[in-house]
Amino acid sequence: MTTDTTAKARSVSVAFLGPPGTYSHQAAHEVFGGTAAYLAQEKVVDVFSAVSVDATYGVIPQENSIFGHVVETYNRLRHADIGSTKLVCGEVTVSVQHCLLVRKGVELHQIKKILSHEQALGQCRGFKARHLPSAVEIKMSSTAAAAEALLLSEYADAAAICSKLCASLFEGVVVLREGIQDTNDNYTRFFVIGGSDAADLRVPSPSHFKALVCLQTGPSPSGTSEAPSRSDILPLLSALQLPTIRIDRRPPRSNAETPGRDMYFVELQEDGHSADKDDVLKEREWSAKVDAALKRVQAAGGEVTLLGTWSL
Amino acid sequence: MTTDTTAKARSVSVAFLGPPGTYSHQAAHEVFGGTAAYLAQEKVVDVFSAVSVDATYGVIPQENSIFGHVVETYNRLRHADIGSTKLVCGEVTVSVQHCLLVRKGVELHQIKKILSHEQALGQCRGFKARHLPSAVEIKMSSTAAAAEALLLSEYADAAAICSKLCASLFEGVVVLREGIQDTNDNYTRFFVIGGSDAADLRVPSPSHFKALVCLQTGPSPSGTSEAPSRSDILPLLSALQLPTIRIDRRPPRSNAETPGRDMYFVELQEDGHSADKDDVLKEREWSAKVDAALKRVQAAGGEVTLLGTWSL
Repeated sequence: MTTDTTAKARSVSVAFLGPPGTYSHQAAHEVFGGTAAYLAQEKVVDVFSAVSVDATYGVIPQENSIFGHVVETYNRLRHADIGSTKLVCGEVTVSVQHCLLVRKGVELHQIKKILSHEQALGQCRGFKARHLPSAVEIKMSSTAAAAEALLLSEYADAAAICSKLCASLFEGVVVLREGIQDTNDNYTRFFVIGGSDAADLRVPSPSHFKALVCLQTGPSPSGTSEAPSRSDILPLLSALQLPTIRIDRRPPRSNAETPGRDMYFVELQEDGHSADKDDVLKEREWSAKVDAALKRVQAAGGEVTLLGTWSL
Repeated sequence: MTTDTTAKARSVSVAFLGPPGTYSHQAAHEVFGGTAAYLAQEKVVDVFSAVSVDATYGVIPQENSIFGHVVETYNRLRHADIGSTKLVCGEVTVSVQHCLLVRKGVELHQIKKILSHEQALGQCRGFKARHLPSAVEIKMSSTAAAAEALLLSEYADAAAICSKLCASLFEGVVVLREGIQDTNDNYTRFFVIGGSDAADLRVPSPSHFKALVCLQTGPSPSGTSEAPSRSDILPLLSALQLPTIRIDRRPPRSNAETPGRDMYFVELQEDGHSADKDDVLKEREWSAKVDAALKRVQAAGGEVTLLGTWSL
């Protein structure tokens, strides 16, 4: 993601899913660079809370190509009470490139132990079999915790599998190998969220304009004794009349006997290429189109919330 | 789910996600009753494999109301090569009702330890605080493993949190309390899958006819040098022209730089209430409607696979 240099230069604080050195941290770095203040949070909900209190922005994982969409993020978005202020204001996708980190001076043949999160260990089995067949795998709570553990004396002969960013966080730790994962199909996409006082993340000459909306069918007519059955979502989606590039459903939080209504998180996108208009004008036009789409959904009997518009 | 009594009486074998006593096992029981042979499998993919080898049917979790859709199930369905044979042929939803199981004779005030899977322990915190505040929680690998552990001498003063079914699986273990979970919003929905030799699960006078289809946008025109961008899925969904009650997306298994195409798993449903036709005729009409919908999606440039039709 390319971001405006003025956004990077400005002093902003960014909440992310910690500890420092996670791929969430790396994603935040890609958007906000080295001058921002980074606030590590324990859970996804804490990132949201931080944005409503002291952080200018937050970076939350939306989906991983292997593990699917991040339930904690959608569970929090479904309760988003954002009124007229924006919430999602950007996105960034990070390819998960595992690195082998060691204490400075340690060579490959000296490595006796490999530390990492269980998932990362599992994703680098090919590299281990080829280069470190006799090393012992030790599971840690996170990839970043593995990197930090290299500082302990008992792990002087160990390597950590983690993000490249960890090498810059822990003194005396260096990258020995990059991209040691078995396959390249592992990537995570993040939303950037902003509080009401956050400036727009302006992208010069954006290629795409985006919007995230949450919609669900209206409540059943009252007074009917019939058991509620699931409603057809297609009329509401059709009413959007805008290019729809992602649809993510969350089941209702109700019991099995009286099912509630599913929530659909729908991402809309329009190409930004039109040389004859300036960016601000194009952005305004996109907002107006999204607003009109929301009105059409409401007219079709749906409930709809705008969770944010952004450009890319 | 009501199933035909002939299906229950016939000797069928049913693969499920084990060990015995899980909620998957309970779901399978609700469909196939006490006379079927049950084959516990370690993973979701093993249930699919068993159906293609020695099991008549399989029961696989589709979604949990708290944890979302089951990625392993969708990852396997996306590779389903089913040709003209059915795959999904039924569904069943199980409300997760945790029970407190003890050795026969043990009373509430005698319980010193509570055994269960971490998730189940977390879902019964309210009951524990009210009735067993000083009992020690011990995490087990599954709720069923907790029930089995009651047979060990070291757990004579323990209780297990698990499904009711476990009481019938382990000799001398009884249900002390039912429905001890904090909230009633926890339920899991399962698909029933069948191999090519599996008989239809006929439901007398079904209230609904269902179908599961998998669709994705067609490949980009070859020869274009442009980076692929995400395609609008709305025209394909609209081409279905059938009531659409669930849409579940899975991201492509490709790298972040060259994104592939999302797969959409779409569930279609039609009301079965029309007194003037017999069930077999209505089922045939539904199949014909679904086939016509698939042809429309193909005509609109989409790729589509029928994963099964069933009634409920």
